[in-house]
Amino acid sequence: MAKYMDVHHGMQGITADQLREAHEADLAVEKDEGVHFERTWADPRSGTVFCLSEAPSAEAVQRVHDRAGHKADELYPVPLTM
Amino acid sequence: MAKYMDVHHGMQGITADQLREAHEADLAVEKDEGVHFERTWADPRSGTVFCLSEAPSAEAVQRVHDRAGHKADELYPVPLTM
Repeated sequence: MAKYMDVHHGMQGITADQLREAHEADLAVEKDEGVHFERTWADPRSGTVFCLSEAPSAEAVQRVHDRAGHKADELYPVPLTM
Repeated sequence: MAKYMDVHHGMQGITADQLREAHEADLAVEKDEGVHFERTWADPRSGTVFCLSEAPSAEAVQRVHDRAGHKADELYPVPLTM
């Protein structure tokens, strides 16, 4: 398992309810891929959303986001953290 | 106070020690600006570093990073989180 940070663009105007729905859509399918989405942060003005996950691979993270209807635009392993 | 996520590019090859030094350089001066850097994550391969902070303004976040010698390339308020 490893940590990943992914970034979504184009989410201008996202509301707290919409972010919660998107996050819950990820949580509903993540177990099938052995992924866990730990946190998410959103800037509605620029339309940028960041998701922090723990997963077996970057491909597994993207498959969960894809099945939940919102593929990430950028996806990075983040092996270093503090 | 508000939450901010900032992104640094061009940090290819960053090591755990270098990330710690950079983070400690932020922590050493952040109080002057009323900022607190909570977490940081790095991908040495792509050279991408993410920093999560709590601060009175985006400008205050950038001033701390600037004084620590590493201005952020992108900086977003993230009022929505879960």
